[in-house]
Amino acid sequence: MSFDAVDVIRTKRDKGELSDGQIDWVIDAYTRGDVADEQMSSLAMAILLNGMTRREIARWTAAMIASGERMDFAKLSRPTADKHSTGGVGDKITLPLAPLVAACGVAVPQLSGRGLGHTGGTLDKLESIPGWRAALSNAELMNQLEDVGAVICAAGDGLAPADKKLYALRDVTGTVEAIPLIASSIMSKKIAEGTGALVLDVKVGTGAFMKDLADARELAETMVALGTDAGVRTVALLTDMSTPLGLTAGNALEVRESLEVLAGGGPADVVELTVALAAEMLAAAGVTDVDPAEKLRDGSAMDVWRRMIAAQDGDPDADLPVAPEQHVVKAEQSGVLSRLDALAVGVAAWRLGAGRARKEDPVSPVAGIELHAKPGDEVTAGQPLLTLHTDDASRFDRALESLADAVDIGTAYEKQPLIIDRVTA
Amino acid sequence: MSFDAVDVIRTKRDKGELSDGQIDWVIDAYTRGDVADEQMSSLAMAILLNGMTRREIARWTAAMIASGERMDFAKLSRPTADKHSTGGVGDKITLPLAPLVAACGVAVPQLSGRGLGHTGGTLDKLESIPGWRAALSNAELMNQLEDVGAVICAAGDGLAPADKKLYALRDVTGTVEAIPLIASSIMSKKIAEGTGALVLDVKVGTGAFMKDLADARELAETMVALGTDAGVRTVALLTDMSTPLGLTAGNALEVRESLEVLAGGGPADVVELTVALAAEMLAAAGVTDVDPAEKLRDGSAMDVWRRMIAAQDGDPDADLPVAPEQHVVKAEQSGVLSRLDALAVGVAAWRLGAGRARKEDPVSPVAGIELHAKPGDEVTAGQPLLTLHTDDASRFDRALESLADAVDIGTAYEKQPLIIDRVTA
Repeated sequence: MSFDAVDVIRTKRDKGELSDGQIDWVIDAYTRGDVADEQMSSLAMAILLNGMTRREIARWTAAMIASGERMDFAKLSRPTADKHSTGGVGDKITLPLAPLVAACGVAVPQLSGRGLGHTGGTLDKLESIPGWRAALSNAELMNQLEDVGAVICAAGDGLAPADKKLYALRDVTGTVEAIPLIASSIMSKKIAEGTGALVLDVKVGTGAFMKDLADARELAETMVALGTDAGVRTVALLTDMSTPLGLTAGNALEVRESLEVLAGGGPADVVELTVALAAEMLAAAGVTDVDPAEKLRDGSAMDVWRRMIAAQDGDPDADLPVAPEQHVVKAEQSGVLSRLDALAVGVAAWRLGAGRARKEDPVSPVAGIELHAKPGDEVTAGQPLLTLHTDDASRFDRALESLADAVDIGTAYEKQPLIIDRVTA
Repeated sequence: MSFDAVDVIRTKRDKGELSDGQIDWVIDAYTRGDVADEQMSSLAMAILLNGMTRREIARWTAAMIASGERMDFAKLSRPTADKHSTGGVGDKITLPLAPLVAACGVAVPQLSGRGLGHTGGTLDKLESIPGWRAALSNAELMNQLEDVGAVICAAGDGLAPADKKLYALRDVTGTVEAIPLIASSIMSKKIAEGTGALVLDVKVGTGAFMKDLADARELAETMVALGTDAGVRTVALLTDMSTPLGLTAGNALEVRESLEVLAGGGPADVVELTVALAAEMLAAAGVTDVDPAEKLRDGSAMDVWRRMIAAQDGDPDADLPVAPEQHVVKAEQSGVLSRLDALAVGVAAWRLGAGRARKEDPVSPVAGIELHAKPGDEVTAGQPLLTLHTDDASRFDRALESLADAVDIGTAYEKQPLIIDRVTA
């Protein structure tokens, strides 16, 4: 059956519910180029402003999955679990998490993206390791999953091509921040990927897409329902992103911090979240008799990391690159660090070269920010608070502008929980 | 100053007010191609759903005017007045009106468009006159205005090119029905055209863009304010479009009916509206001592018509083309014709070939519908109600489908006023 793009747009514009036929048609026609970008963008804006029912979101997601291939891990000798984070500042959790979960006996097919805007991309981080390559064929992915148990690689072009096209369009048309579109974009790729279990890390706070808890909860509930309905055991954690995770934001800087975690050390918040997400992934995959914290301590997660990096031609023993230009920001007064804003740090790291403004931009492996204190820490006037890293000293000014209002030093700090809530089907 | 398209879109999406700088930039950048169609369409949808303040609409209109040339009629020996109708079924009023007002001493520069969808276009109607051409240079337009006093021609490409581009985009992206965009589109062209006075005929009813009175009133008030602020004496009539105007819808059919009006006859509603609009145009142009009804009766409007058509190479004495295929729809019962739906008749005429689905489609000069009765008339079972005209008998079926529910015959009819209200600054 054929539909008319303007009729579909008008239906959503006038607060109607799109039929299954309309959704299937518009996604397929857009993928083929029969619905133009300017039509899809006005539809996306109407969806953003008028919303979608759960039924519409489920159908939209299914149509995006149907636009491409589906992978199948049923032949693997162990269960699979994947994790998705909605993106934050200093969020390097995937790096220690994937080998940790694999060390516990569950295979992790982590198909990842690159960073856009102030949130870093997992592939960009790993590419700071000399030799490491992000692109794997489906056969390589499957072999590595069986042999090593963990893969972090670029999602192939075959998965949900409709989403790929729509994501790029939303980025330039002010239609990113729509819960139905965010949820269907994430879940179409994860369901098409074929994971058996999925744990979602939905960030809340200044450094996250979702600035407030109600929106984050709605997004989490929407995604958990989509996954569950598609037969994927799905659970979500709502986690704090008002301040950066750990003590680094940037590519090589975050790899270094991840190695500390894999070596049994590292910042407490990164360890807490890594272990919590690992426990969720194991439970969702049906593995309940392994303690992930123990696998960090005993070095088995680090062993998987080394094999995982080497399998993708990276040298796990290579020195990571270091920024030639560094600038220290000092505390202006003594007291308790009561706020260190995630968004400001993320934007500053991006301006130093760690992220990209457009998809085709390169990123610097060395650029980023080191934190020398976290909210709640006592600081003394003149002590280093942040170190800015870059290839190009001319970038400091703009980065410092972003940090101008990033820090509060006061007399007290009320600790917020890192893991705010847990959402299940 | 430079802006970012996504920031502009987000401002309106999040229910903010666009700044003068944002509006000027986005219109200019869109005209130049630096803002992409898919960005402008998502902005248009955000405007449609979130609205614009009067200040934003005024600035948007000014920016569209500034995208092109402005004409100036100050050197003419008489005042100018123009009319714009928001479009209806059987709305041939421009045809007798322009020469009538010119016969009363006021010059009428009527830059018109073509029909799209179920409403007919003035230029399409006049092109059913053998030889007549719509395209005039600015110099020809000015000379004809001075010599004849009335011009109906195609708007040149130089006026408000931003509007031209945006109008085509809105047509395919479901963003036509936004009052700020409709008002700014109409008024940017009329203000750029340089008329001294402007009378707006804002239609209300099934056959009009505006289906209900509140929307029509808002559109009228918005346009009157825009014109007044730009120094154009502007007034609007709200007029009924629940049933077609006159007894014809179609190109040559409407020219024939207009000639009847110019000859002192014609349907009462067409005469009523023509004279009322003429009186408004004369008053707005400062001419208060001429009775337009008299100029219809004494043949002076017809004289101007003949000179106006001849000046554009049309033959005022040529026979108008007649449809080779005709089909009569008869009354199914006796009684009072209580409803004859404008939209159904408009769509049927369009399906018979009188209008176009896409801008590049040709129109048939002969296709259309003749009405043999109007709401309020007594009819007898079996008497002709409508005659369908077309080049192609295979079109009757689809036209008749559109007419299936167009007619009610009952026992009573409460006459509605044709002119519902008058809106002034």
